[in-house]
Amino acid sequence: MSQIELKETVLAKAQAAKKAARVLGVMPADDKNKALLAMAESLWKNRESIFAANAEDVREARENGIPETRIDRLVLTEKRLQDMMEGLRQIVELADPVGETLETIERPNGLLIEKVRVPFGVIAMIYESRPNVTVDAAGLALKTGNAVVLRGGKEALRSNIALVDAMREGLAGSRIPLEAVQLIDRTERESVDILIRAKDVVDLVIPRGGAGLIQRVIENALVPVIETGVGNCHVYVDEAADFDKATRIVLNAKTQRPSVCNAMETLLVHEQAGKWLPGIVYALQERGVEVRGCRKTQEILGETQCLDISFATEEDYATEYLDLILAIKVVSKVEEAIEHIERYGTRHSEAIVTENQAAAEKFLAEVDAAAVYHNASTRFTDGFEFGFGAEIGISTQKLHARGPMGLRELTSYKYIIRGTGQTR
Amino acid sequence: MSQIELKETVLAKAQAAKKAARVLGVMPADDKNKALLAMAESLWKNRESIFAANAEDVREARENGIPETRIDRLVLTEKRLQDMMEGLRQIVELADPVGETLETIERPNGLLIEKVRVPFGVIAMIYESRPNVTVDAAGLALKTGNAVVLRGGKEALRSNIALVDAMREGLAGSRIPLEAVQLIDRTERESVDILIRAKDVVDLVIPRGGAGLIQRVIENALVPVIETGVGNCHVYVDEAADFDKATRIVLNAKTQRPSVCNAMETLLVHEQAGKWLPGIVYALQERGVEVRGCRKTQEILGETQCLDISFATEEDYATEYLDLILAIKVVSKVEEAIEHIERYGTRHSEAIVTENQAAAEKFLAEVDAAAVYHNASTRFTDGFEFGFGAEIGISTQKLHARGPMGLRELTSYKYIIRGTGQTR
Repeated sequence: MSQIELKETVLAKAQAAKKAARVLGVMPADDKNKALLAMAESLWKNRESIFAANAEDVREARENGIPETRIDRLVLTEKRLQDMMEGLRQIVELADPVGETLETIERPNGLLIEKVRVPFGVIAMIYESRPNVTVDAAGLALKTGNAVVLRGGKEALRSNIALVDAMREGLAGSRIPLEAVQLIDRTERESVDILIRAKDVVDLVIPRGGAGLIQRVIENALVPVIETGVGNCHVYVDEAADFDKATRIVLNAKTQRPSVCNAMETLLVHEQAGKWLPGIVYALQERGVEVRGCRKTQEILGETQCLDISFATEEDYATEYLDLILAIKVVSKVEEAIEHIERYGTRHSEAIVTENQAAAEKFLAEVDAAAVYHNASTRFTDGFEFGFGAEIGISTQKLHARGPMGLRELTSYKYIIRGTGQTR
Repeated sequence: MSQIELKETVLAKAQAAKKAARVLGVMPADDKNKALLAMAESLWKNRESIFAANAEDVREARENGIPETRIDRLVLTEKRLQDMMEGLRQIVELADPVGETLETIERPNGLLIEKVRVPFGVIAMIYESRPNVTVDAAGLALKTGNAVVLRGGKEALRSNIALVDAMREGLAGSRIPLEAVQLIDRTERESVDILIRAKDVVDLVIPRGGAGLIQRVIENALVPVIETGVGNCHVYVDEAADFDKATRIVLNAKTQRPSVCNAMETLLVHEQAGKWLPGIVYALQERGVEVRGCRKTQEILGETQCLDISFATEEDYATEYLDLILAIKVVSKVEEAIEHIERYGTRHSEAIVTENQAAAEKFLAEVDAAAVYHNASTRFTDGFEFGFGAEIGISTQKLHARGPMGLRELTSYKYIIRGTGQTR
């Protein structure tokens, strides 16, 4: 396919989505909910063709030597398909944010200004080979009155085609136009670039995946992008910490699920909390965590003779390991912890453990991140844990939506002004 | 200056702003207000050097053949300086949005999640040769706890240096660090590119100026951009219009200030409202408006013999004239008006004039624009007219802030989570 044909193919899908978005944008919640339930049913009805397509994807991924951790994300099972269907049903239960009046302003000249929540229009999702994102993103977008253009990783292409076919079959009996869910079935990288530069058609781009994917999207997009998910997160254990809490929080933040963005990557410890260090390092190592520390950490641990750890470099502090590895730095005061986070953090999730209220308030106020915790694990930065009932990603940028993004974060607003002939 | 030196110079200023932003971000409103008043006083105290610098800028602009309309924007007078000072004093009177709790969520596990309004951090303003933007932007940014990096047009460089020097002299006696206001005094276009790509230092870019400037910024920025100000705005006069209202609104929207973004550029008229057309065209022409119309418009006017207008092309409909020129199109129903706006509008301000409530509601719901009016002039899309008390621009994008942007739109939010040792 030539570049021109590729461009035409991608833009035609985005334009079809835009047309569908106009219908969908003013559709009552009831009609949207019925369509979502029909989509869920249709996934189950078409499970055999979905599993067959997925098996092909998995077979080819194995042949191509894709690592097993990535293949694990790709594999669809009955349980995983049911989870996706359950996800759609949960979205149905959530209130529809579209049409909500956010603010009413009455002006002295009699103009009545209403700020009303509206859908974005067309949302493009750029993601890797996780077929569950295909269904989640479609469900969240449709519920909020948005059409969606999906571009998943090429290893999941057959699975995504089968999932989208099934969802569209479900839409066929509903009032939502089929065209509201579009899948870019081209694997060329250029297809992404065309989509994220289609400023007149696409209203919002959400990249979901590793740092490389997100960086590429940001560098090439003309459409506004919500940056998600890279989390170099810290826990700072203060001299005035309750060390039982500190131990529980640190173990949870590092080991409960190390591969996710809200897991801790660097532990900052006040020098007066040195006595607590050998115990926590021992507990971490026991759970299979490789610990790297600054000179001061090594000195403190050296006194205990038995704990041997490697040296943490600048690069360690800048790395989101997403693995059972932890960097430790000893600091002399809360300000130093805040400065370290300012320098190396990715504005995602940061925590302080202390019983000193003044230190806590300073940290909460001054740390620049989407979510700042006092005496709790960074792992709570999550749409479900925040009670949003759904999540399309966690934003680490400050424009529009920050932190976990649920239904409301998939909407914009407009001003509706009612007059009686007013002029200036 | 080499490219490397230029980059170092620009980044050093942005980094100094970032450092100042940390102090400014948690500063009480009182301290910020005192600093803003001191800035206003200092502008007056330094008026002679400001006027001298401005006179040099104006002289050079004339020598370089800059058109008088642009020179008019560049000229500073006592009245204009006083207006800027008054602008700063008005900003002092407005409530400080920073620190506001937007939402409180109590979770079953006892976590207390607060969504709190915070400054962006460092805002970069890219604008043309209007020295008043220098003072307005600095005032709005500081009030909302943001540091600002200003990059104005090169014709106003001397004026901007004098204004920023005066403002900083005012800051010297305040608690706001001088470094919170930075001026990029390099005129190379690359200085803009360096600034808008400094993703780790700058939190937000606001371009203000013509379509060319805004497009360039969007294409080159890595920092999130709020797109402002391009307005190809329409008024649709329905068959069920109150034609007195229609006449007043159309004349106001086109002629009260044709050079601004919320002025009307195309008039859409229902074919059943044809009888009203000759009168409005006559009234517009009397006010110096050049009218261009579709075939149908010409037919209707042709019957009156005396009104001769030129043909409106596709290009006319796509143009933001910003001048006393108007395109007219006759449509057969409200849907056709909505489609025309969908195709040619820039999502800024759109109006319907009708007494038919159903047609009005359809238009208000379906038209995708920052501000949609029923029976009022598009000219009201403005921070002051909306009662925001201030305005840094009018956003035509849907991310974060849409429509007139006041103080609140210069803030983001973060989640502050208070726990008692919770883990997942």
